[in-house]
Amino acid sequence: MTKSNDKATALRNDILAIKRERILSEAVDLFYENGYLSTNVDAIAQQLGATKPFVYYHFKSKIELLSDICSRLMLEALDVAEAAAGADAGPVEKLAQFAVGFTKLVLERHKHVSIYFREELNLPDDVKAAISDMRRKIDYRLRGILKEGVQTGEFHFSNVAVASQIVSGMVSYTFAWYDEARPLSKEAIIRQMLEQVLMSVGVDRARLDAVQKPQIA
Amino acid sequence: MTKSNDKATALRNDILAIKRERILSEAVDLFYENGYLSTNVDAIAQQLGATKPFVYYHFKSKIELLSDICSRLMLEALDVAEAAAGADAGPVEKLAQFAVGFTKLVLERHKHVSIYFREELNLPDDVKAAISDMRRKIDYRLRGILKEGVQTGEFHFSNVAVASQIVSGMVSYTFAWYDEARPLSKEAIIRQMLEQVLMSVGVDRARLDAVQKPQIA
Repeated sequence: MTKSNDKATALRNDILAIKRERILSEAVDLFYENGYLSTNVDAIAQQLGATKPFVYYHFKSKIELLSDICSRLMLEALDVAEAAAGADAGPVEKLAQFAVGFTKLVLERHKHVSIYFREELNLPDDVKAAISDMRRKIDYRLRGILKEGVQTGEFHFSNVAVASQIVSGMVSYTFAWYDEARPLSKEAIIRQMLEQVLMSVGVDRARLDAVQKPQIA
Repeated sequence: MTKSNDKATALRNDILAIKRERILSEAVDLFYENGYLSTNVDAIAQQLGATKPFVYYHFKSKIELLSDICSRLMLEALDVAEAAAGADAGPVEKLAQFAVGFTKLVLERHKHVSIYFREELNLPDDVKAAISDMRRKIDYRLRGILKEGVQTGEFHFSNVAVASQIVSGMVSYTFAWYDEARPLSKEAIIRQMLEQVLMSVGVDRARLDAVQKPQIA
Protein backbone atom coordinates (compact mmCIF):
# COMPACT_ATOMS: atom_id res chain seq x y z
CA MET A 1 0.00 0.00 0.00
CA THR A 2 1.33 3.49 -0.80
CA LYS A 3 1.72 6.20 1.79
CA SER A 4 -1.17 8.22 0.37
CA ASN A 5 -3.38 5.12 0.61
CA ASP A 6 -2.47 4.80 4.30
CA LYS A 7 -3.38 8.42 4.85
CA ALA A 8 -6.68 7.99 3.03
CA THR A 9 -7.52 4.97 5.22
CA ALA A 10 -6.60 6.84 8.39
CA LEU A 11 -8.75 9.80 7.35
CA ARG A 12 -11.64 7.49 6.51
CA ASN A 13 -11.38 5.84 9.94
CA ASP A 14 -11.25 9.21 11.68
CA ILE A 15 -14.39 10.30 9.88
CA LEU A 16 -16.15 7.04 10.74
CA ALA A 17 -15.22 7.51 14.41
CA ILE A 18 -16.47 11.11 14.40
CA LYS A 19 -19.79 10.04 12.87
CA ARG A 20 -20.21 7.29 15.47
CA GLU A 21 -19.52 9.78 18.25
CA ARG A 22 -22.10 12.23 16.88
CA ILE A 23 -24.72 9.49 16.72
CA LEU A 24 -23.92 8.27 20.24
CA SER A 25 -24.08 11.79 21.61
CA GLU A 26 -27.58 12.37 20.16
CA ALA A 27 -28.67 8.96 21.42
CA VAL A 28 -27.45 9.85 24.94
CA ASP A 29 -29.45 13.09 24.91
CA LEU A 30 -32.64 11.43 23.66
CA PHE A 31 -32.40 8.33 25.90
CA TYR A 32 -31.75 10.68 28.83
CA GLU A 33 -34.69 12.98 28.05
CA ASN A 34 -37.28 10.44 26.92
CA GLY A 35 -36.08 6.98 27.95
CA TYR A 36 -34.68 4.18 25.80
CA LEU A 37 -37.97 2.45 24.98
CA SER A 38 -39.67 5.71 24.00
CA THR A 39 -36.85 6.73 21.63
CA ASN A 40 -36.66 5.31 18.13
CA VAL A 41 -33.86 5.39 15.57
CA ASP A 42 -35.94 7.78 13.44
CA ALA A 43 -35.85 10.37 16.20
CA ILE A 44 -32.08 9.98 16.54
CA ALA A 45 -31.59 10.37 12.78
CA GLN A 46 -33.89 13.38 12.70
CA GLN A 47 -32.03 15.04 15.55
CA LEU A 48 -28.81 14.56 13.56
CA GLY A 49 -30.40 15.93 10.39
CA ALA A 50 -29.64 12.53 8.85
CA THR A 51 -31.54 9.47 7.66
CA LYS A 52 -32.32 6.20 9.42
CA PRO A 53 -30.05 4.21 7.04
CA PHE A 54 -27.20 6.56 8.01
CA VAL A 55 -27.60 5.53 11.66
CA TYR A 56 -27.96 1.85 10.74
CA TYR A 57 -24.79 2.02 8.68
CA HIS A 58 -22.87 2.82 11.87
CA PHE A 59 -24.88 0.87 14.45
CA LYS A 60 -26.66 -2.39 13.69
CA SER A 61 -29.56 -1.57 16.01
CA LYS A 62 -30.85 0.70 18.75
CA ILE A 63 -29.72 -1.83 21.35
CA GLU A 64 -26.15 -1.51 20.05
CA LEU A 65 -26.30 2.19 20.87
CA LEU A 66 -27.47 1.49 24.42
CA SER A 67 -24.87 -1.24 24.85
CA ASP A 68 -22.08 1.05 23.66
CA ILE A 69 -23.16 3.90 25.97
CA CYS A 70 -23.21 1.65 29.04
CA SER A 71 -20.13 -0.47 28.28
CA ARG A 72 -17.92 2.52 27.56
CA LEU A 73 -19.00 4.23 30.75
CA MET A 74 -18.09 1.18 32.80
CA LEU A 75 -14.77 0.80 30.98
CA GLU A 76 -13.89 4.40 31.85
CA ALA A 77 -14.83 3.74 35.48
CA LEU A 78 -12.64 0.64 35.51
CA ASP A 79 -9.73 2.67 34.12
CA VAL A 80 -10.12 5.13 37.00
CA ALA A 81 -10.17 2.31 39.57
CA GLU A 82 -7.13 0.57 38.08
CA ALA A 83 -5.12 3.78 37.83
CA ALA A 84 -5.87 4.61 41.47
CA ALA A 85 -5.15 1.10 42.76
CA GLY A 86 -1.92 0.95 40.75
CA ALA A 87 -0.63 4.38 41.81
CA ASP A 88 2.76 4.55 43.48
CA ALA A 89 1.32 5.95 46.73
CA GLY A 90 -0.13 4.98 50.09
CA PRO A 91 -3.78 3.99 50.58
CA VAL A 92 -4.96 7.48 51.58
CA GLU A 93 -3.56 9.00 48.38
CA LYS A 94 -4.88 6.08 46.31
CA LEU A 95 -8.36 6.52 47.72
CA ALA A 96 -8.11 10.28 47.13
CA GLN A 97 -7.24 9.57 43.49
CA PHE A 98 -10.13 7.12 43.21
CA ALA A 99 -12.62 9.61 44.72
CA VAL A 100 -11.51 12.47 42.49
CA GLY A 101 -11.33 10.40 39.29
CA PHE A 102 -14.64 8.68 39.87
CA THR A 103 -16.51 11.85 40.83
CA LYS A 104 -15.11 13.67 37.80
CA LEU A 105 -16.28 10.84 35.58
CA VAL A 106 -19.78 10.75 37.09
CA LEU A 107 -20.14 14.54 36.75
CA GLU A 108 -18.86 14.44 33.17
CA ARG A 109 -21.07 11.49 32.24
CA HIS A 110 -24.07 12.02 34.49
CA LYS A 111 -26.48 11.39 31.60
CA HIS A 112 -24.72 8.10 30.80
CA VAL A 113 -24.91 7.04 34.45
CA SER A 114 -28.64 7.85 34.57
CA ILE A 115 -29.23 5.88 31.39
CA TYR A 116 -27.27 2.92 32.72
CA PHE A 117 -29.24 2.75 35.98
CA ARG A 118 -32.58 3.18 34.24
CA GLU A 119 -32.05 0.89 31.28
CA GLU A 120 -29.89 -1.89 32.69
CA LEU A 121 -32.84 -4.29 32.31
CA ASN A 122 -32.99 -3.61 28.57
CA LEU A 123 -29.36 -4.58 27.89
CA PRO A 124 -28.64 -7.88 26.09
CA ASP A 125 -27.45 -10.66 28.39
CA ASP A 126 -23.87 -10.71 27.09
CA VAL A 127 -23.50 -6.96 27.62
CA LYS A 128 -25.07 -7.24 31.08
CA ALA A 129 -22.54 -9.96 31.91
CA ALA A 130 -19.58 -7.94 30.60
CA ILE A 131 -20.69 -4.90 32.61
CA SER A 132 -21.19 -6.97 35.78
CA ASP A 133 -17.69 -8.29 35.29
CA MET A 134 -16.29 -4.74 35.06
CA ARG A 135 -18.25 -3.72 38.17
CA ARG A 136 -16.76 -6.67 40.05
CA LYS A 137 -13.28 -5.60 38.95
CA ILE A 138 -13.89 -2.02 40.11
CA ASP A 139 -15.09 -3.32 43.47
CA TYR A 140 -12.04 -5.60 43.71
CA ARG A 141 -9.65 -2.66 43.12
CA LEU A 142 -11.45 -0.46 45.63
CA ARG A 143 -11.46 -3.22 48.24
CA GLY A 144 -7.72 -3.60 47.67
CA ILE A 145 -7.15 0.07 48.47
CA LEU A 146 -9.42 -0.13 51.52
CA LYS A 147 -7.64 -3.21 52.90
CA GLU A 148 -4.26 -1.48 52.56
CA GLY A 149 -5.58 1.44 54.60
CA VAL A 150 -6.80 -0.88 57.34
CA GLN A 151 -3.34 -2.48 57.43
CA THR A 152 -1.56 0.89 57.77
CA GLY A 153 -4.03 1.81 60.53
CA GLU A 154 -5.34 4.83 58.59
CA PHE A 155 -8.81 3.42 57.77
CA HIS A 156 -11.35 2.28 60.34
CA PHE A 157 -14.50 0.31 59.53
CA SER A 158 -15.86 -3.19 60.22
CA ASN A 159 -16.40 -4.82 56.84
CA VAL A 160 -14.43 -4.06 53.69
CA ALA A 161 -17.18 -5.23 51.28
CA VAL A 162 -19.71 -2.87 52.85
CA ALA A 163 -17.19 -0.01 52.98
CA SER A 164 -16.41 -0.47 49.29
CA GLN A 165 -20.07 -0.27 48.34
CA ILE A 166 -20.67 2.73 50.59
CA VAL A 167 -17.78 4.62 48.98
CA SER A 168 -18.95 3.65 45.48
CA GLY A 169 -22.43 4.82 46.42
CA MET A 170 -21.28 8.23 47.68
CA VAL A 171 -19.57 9.02 44.39
CA SER A 172 -21.89 7.21 41.95
CA TYR A 173 -25.04 8.78 43.35
CA THR A 174 -23.78 12.22 42.36
CA PHE A 175 -25.50 11.62 39.01
CA ALA A 176 -28.87 11.82 40.77
CA TRP A 177 -28.38 15.24 42.35
CA TYR A 178 -25.81 17.00 40.20
CA ASP A 179 -27.52 19.70 38.22
CA GLU A 180 -25.68 21.72 35.62
CA ALA A 181 -27.85 24.68 36.55
CA ARG A 182 -26.77 24.65 40.20
CA PRO A 183 -24.48 27.40 41.40
CA LEU A 184 -21.95 24.85 42.71
CA SER A 185 -18.83 24.34 40.65
CA LYS A 186 -17.69 20.85 39.71
CA GLU A 187 -14.38 21.59 41.43
CA ALA A 188 -16.11 22.41 44.73
CA ILE A 189 -18.14 19.20 44.57
CA ILE A 190 -15.07 17.09 43.75
CA ARG A 191 -13.02 18.67 46.56
CA GLN A 192 -15.72 18.08 49.15
CA MET A 193 -16.35 14.53 47.89
CA LEU A 194 -12.65 13.77 48.29
CA GLU A 195 -12.72 14.95 51.91
CA GLN A 196 -15.97 13.22 52.83
CA VAL A 197 -14.92 9.93 51.20
CA LEU A 198 -11.67 9.91 53.19
CA MET A 199 -13.45 10.84 56.42
CA SER A 200 -16.12 8.18 55.78
CA VAL A 201 -13.53 5.40 56.03
CA GLY A 202 -12.07 6.87 59.21
CA VAL A 203 -9.16 9.03 58.01
CA ASP A 204 -8.37 11.61 60.71
CA ARG A 205 -8.99 15.23 59.83
CA ALA A 206 -5.40 16.07 60.69
CA ARG A 207 -4.22 13.51 58.11
CA LEU A 208 -6.66 14.98 55.55
CA ASP A 209 -4.82 18.27 55.49
CA ALA A 210 -1.62 16.46 54.57
CA VAL A 211 -3.19 14.57 51.64
CA GLN A 212 -1.45 15.06 48.32
CA LYS A 213 -4.46 16.41 46.46
CA PRO A 214 -4.78 14.93 42.97
CA GLN A 215 -5.29 17.32 40.05
CA ILE A 216 -8.92 18.42 40.33
CA ALA A 217 -9.67 21.10 37.73
CA MET B 1 -76.12 4.01 61.52
CA THR B 2 -76.18 0.97 63.80
CA LYS B 3 -73.09 -0.45 65.44
CA SER B 4 -73.18 -3.57 63.28
CA ASN B 5 -73.34 -1.35 60.18
CA ASP B 6 -70.20 0.44 61.40
CA LYS B 7 -68.47 -2.87 61.85
CA ALA B 8 -69.50 -4.03 58.39
CA THR B 9 -68.13 -0.83 56.85
CA ALA B 10 -64.88 -1.16 58.75
CA LEU B 11 -64.51 -4.76 57.64
CA ARG B 12 -65.27 -3.82 54.04
CA ASN B 13 -62.60 -1.09 54.16
CA ASP B 14 -60.07 -3.48 55.67
CA ILE B 15 -60.67 -5.97 52.89
CA LEU B 16 -60.39 -3.26 50.24
CA ALA B 17 -57.08 -2.17 51.74
CA ILE B 18 -55.77 -5.74 51.82
CA LYS B 19 -56.72 -6.25 48.17
CA ARG B 20 -54.98 -3.01 47.17
CA GLU B 21 -51.85 -4.09 49.03
CA ARG B 22 -51.82 -7.47 47.30
CA ILE B 23 -52.14 -5.82 43.88
CA LEU B 24 -49.40 -3.30 44.68
CA SER B 25 -47.11 -6.02 45.93
CA GLU B 26 -47.46 -8.02 42.69
CA ALA B 27 -46.99 -4.84 40.65
CA VAL B 28 -43.76 -4.10 42.56
CA ASP B 29 -42.40 -7.58 41.81
CA LEU B 30 -43.26 -7.41 38.11
CA PHE B 31 -42.12 -3.81 37.56
CA TYR B 32 -38.88 -4.71 39.36
CA GLU B 33 -38.26 -7.88 37.31
CA ASN B 34 -39.42 -6.72 33.88
CA GLY B 35 -39.73 -2.92 33.95
CA TYR B 36 -42.84 -0.75 34.01
CA LEU B 37 -43.31 -0.40 30.24
CA SER B 38 -42.91 -4.15 29.67
CA THR B 39 -45.49 -5.09 32.31
CA ASN B 40 -49.19 -4.95 31.54
CA VAL B 41 -52.20 -5.11 33.83
CA ASP B 42 -53.01 -8.58 32.42
CA ALA B 43 -49.74 -9.92 33.77
CA ILE B 44 -50.42 -8.39 37.20
CA ALA B 45 -53.92 -9.91 37.28
CA GLN B 46 -52.59 -13.28 36.16
CA GLN B 47 -49.91 -13.25 38.86
CA LEU B 48 -52.66 -12.58 41.41
CA GLY B 49 -54.85 -15.36 39.99
CA ALA B 50 -57.42 -12.62 39.31
CA THR B 51 -58.94 -10.83 36.33
CA LYS B 52 -58.04 -7.50 34.73
CA PRO B 53 -61.36 -5.91 35.84
CA PHE B 54 -60.46 -6.88 39.42
CA VAL B 55 -57.27 -4.81 39.18
CA TYR B 56 -59.07 -1.93 37.45
CA TYR B 57 -61.69 -1.91 40.20
CA HIS B 58 -58.96 -0.98 42.67
CA PHE B 59 -56.63 1.08 40.47
CA LYS B 60 -57.84 3.25 37.60
CA SER B 61 -54.78 2.48 35.49
CA LYS B 62 -51.27 1.02 35.43
CA ILE B 63 -49.84 4.50 35.95
CA GLU B 64 -51.80 4.79 39.21
CA LEU B 65 -49.96 1.69 40.45
CA LEU B 66 -46.58 3.20 39.60
CA SER B 67 -47.56 6.54 41.12
CA ASP B 68 -48.69 4.86 44.34
CA ILE B 69 -45.48 2.81 44.64
CA CYS B 70 -43.24 5.86 44.22
CA SER B 71 -45.29 8.36 46.25
CA ARG B 72 -45.64 6.08 49.24
CA LEU B 73 -41.92 5.33 49.25
CA MET B 74 -41.08 9.02 49.32
CA LEU B 75 -43.68 9.67 52.02
CA GLU B 76 -42.07 6.99 54.19
CA ALA B 77 -38.66 8.57 53.57
CA LEU B 78 -40.02 11.98 54.54
CA ASP B 79 -41.44 10.50 57.77
CA VAL B 80 -37.96 9.18 58.64
CA ALA B 81 -36.36 12.57 57.95
CA GLU B 82 -38.97 14.47 59.98
CA ALA B 83 -38.77 12.08 62.93
CA ALA B 84 -34.97 12.38 63.00
CA ALA B 85 -34.94 16.16 62.63
CA GLY B 86 -37.60 16.51 65.31
CA ALA B 87 -35.95 14.18 67.82
CA ASP B 88 -35.16 15.55 71.27
CA ALA B 89 -31.40 15.02 70.85
CA GLY B 90 -28.21 16.62 69.62
CA PRO B 91 -27.18 16.66 65.94
CA VAL B 92 -24.97 13.54 66.18
CA GLU B 93 -27.85 11.48 67.57
CA LYS B 94 -30.29 13.01 65.07
CA LEU B 95 -28.02 12.12 62.18
CA ALA B 96 -27.58 8.61 63.61
CA GLN B 97 -31.36 8.23 63.70
CA PHE B 98 -31.63 9.52 60.13
CA ALA B 99 -28.95 7.11 58.87
CA VAL B 100 -30.47 4.09 60.61
CA GLY B 101 -34.07 4.90 59.62
CA PHE B 102 -33.22 5.71 56.04
CA THR B 103 -30.99 2.67 55.51
CA LYS B 104 -33.62 0.39 57.05
CA LEU B 105 -36.22 1.83 54.68
CA VAL B 106 -34.01 1.44 51.60
CA LEU B 107 -33.18 -2.17 52.53
CA GLU B 108 -36.83 -2.94 53.21
CA ARG B 109 -38.01 -1.25 50.02
CA HIS B 110 -35.05 -1.79 47.70
CA LYS B 111 -37.34 -2.90 44.87
CA HIS B 112 -39.44 0.26 45.27
CA VAL B 113 -36.30 2.41 45.20
CA SER B 114 -35.08 0.68 42.03
CA ILE B 115 -38.46 1.20 40.39
CA TYR B 116 -38.51 4.85 41.37
CA PHE B 117 -35.07 5.56 39.90
CA ARG B 118 -35.78 3.64 36.73
CA GLU B 119 -39.30 4.82 36.03
CA GLU B 120 -39.28 8.41 37.28
CA LEU B 121 -39.62 9.59 33.66
CA ASN B 122 -42.87 7.66 33.25
CA LEU B 123 -44.64 9.32 36.20
CA PRO B 124 -47.41 11.84 35.50
CA ASP B 125 -46.33 15.46 35.95
CA ASP B 126 -48.41 16.08 39.08
CA VAL B 127 -46.95 13.00 40.80
CA LYS B 128 -43.43 14.00 39.70
CA ALA B 129 -44.02 17.44 41.22
CA ALA B 130 -45.37 16.02 44.49
CA ILE B 131 -42.38 13.67 44.78
CA SER B 132 -39.89 16.47 44.02
CA ASP B 133 -41.55 18.47 46.74
CA MET B 134 -41.11 15.62 49.25
CA ARG B 135 -37.47 15.21 48.19
CA ARG B 136 -36.89 18.93 48.80
CA LYS B 137 -38.45 18.58 52.27
CA ILE B 138 -36.21 15.59 53.09
CA ASP B 139 -33.17 17.55 51.96
CA TYR B 140 -34.32 20.55 54.04
CA ARG B 141 -34.59 18.40 57.19
CA LEU B 142 -31.22 16.78 56.61
CA ARG B 143 -29.57 20.14 56.01
CA GLY B 144 -31.09 21.33 59.27
CA ILE B 145 -29.44 18.49 61.18
CA LEU B 146 -26.13 19.08 59.40
CA LYS B 147 -26.14 22.81 60.17
CA GLU B 148 -26.76 22.09 63.86
CA GLY B 149 -23.73 19.81 63.91
CA VAL B 150 -21.54 22.49 62.34
CA GLN B 151 -22.73 24.93 65.02
CA THR B 152 -21.90 22.53 67.87
CA GLY B 153 -18.47 21.96 66.27
CA GLU B 154 -19.12 18.22 65.83
CA PHE B 155 -19.47 18.21 62.01
CA HIS B 156 -16.79 19.40 59.59
CA PHE B 157 -17.35 19.99 55.87
CA SER B 158 -17.37 22.99 53.50
CA ASN B 159 -20.85 23.14 51.99
CA VAL B 160 -24.03 21.93 53.68
CA ALA B 161 -25.96 21.37 50.40
CA VAL B 162 -23.22 19.08 49.07
CA ALA B 163 -22.89 17.28 52.41
CA SER B 164 -26.64 16.65 52.50
CA GLN B 165 -26.60 15.10 49.02
CA ILE B 166 -23.52 13.02 49.80
CA VAL B 167 -25.15 11.59 52.93
CA SER B 168 -28.41 10.93 51.05
CA GLY B 169 -26.38 9.23 48.33
CA MET B 170 -24.54 6.92 50.73
CA VAL B 171 -27.75 5.58 52.15
CA SER B 172 -29.99 5.70 49.06
CA TYR B 173 -27.50 3.89 46.85
CA THR B 174 -27.75 0.82 49.08
CA PHE B 175 -30.64 -0.29 46.83
CA ALA B 176 -28.14 -0.81 44.01
CA TRP B 177 -25.82 -3.18 45.83
CA TYR B 178 -27.91 -4.78 48.54
CA ASP B 179 -28.60 -8.34 47.61
CA GLU B 180 -30.88 -10.52 49.67
CA ALA B 181 -28.64 -13.47 48.80
CA ARG B 182 -25.51 -11.88 50.26
CA PRO B 183 -24.20 -13.30 53.50
CA LEU B 184 -24.28 -9.84 55.17
CA SER B 185 -27.08 -9.23 57.61
CA LYS B 186 -29.21 -6.11 57.36
CA GLU B 187 -28.18 -5.26 60.92
CA ALA B 188 -24.48 -5.35 60.03
CA ILE B 189 -25.06 -3.08 57.01
CA ILE B 190 -27.13 -0.61 59.04
CA ARG B 191 -24.57 -0.49 61.85
CA GLN B 192 -21.68 0.17 59.49
CA MET B 193 -23.70 2.73 57.51
CA LEU B 194 -24.44 4.59 60.74
CA GLU B 195 -20.71 4.77 61.57
CA GLN B 196 -19.59 5.71 58.07
CA VAL B 197 -22.28 8.40 57.69
CA LEU B 198 -21.20 10.01 60.98
CA MET B 199 -17.50 9.80 60.08
CA SER B 200 -18.22 11.20 56.58
CA VAL B 201 -19.39 14.50 58.07
CA GLY B 202 -16.36 14.70 60.35
CA VAL B 203 -17.56 13.17 63.63
CA ASP B 204 -14.51 12.02 65.62
CA ARG B 205 -14.15 8.31 66.17
CA ALA B 206 -13.97 8.86 69.92
CA ARG B 207 -17.36 10.61 69.79
CA LEU B 208 -18.74 7.70 67.70
CA ASP B 209 -18.31 5.26 70.53
CA ALA B 210 -20.45 7.47 72.75
CA VAL B 211 -23.34 7.70 70.27
CA GLN B 212 -26.71 6.61 71.63
CA LYS B 213 -27.34 3.91 69.04
CA PRO B 214 -30.92 3.95 67.76
CA GLN B 215 -32.84 0.68 67.73
CA ILE B 216 -31.43 -1.24 64.76
CA ALA B 217 -32.91 -4.73 64.62
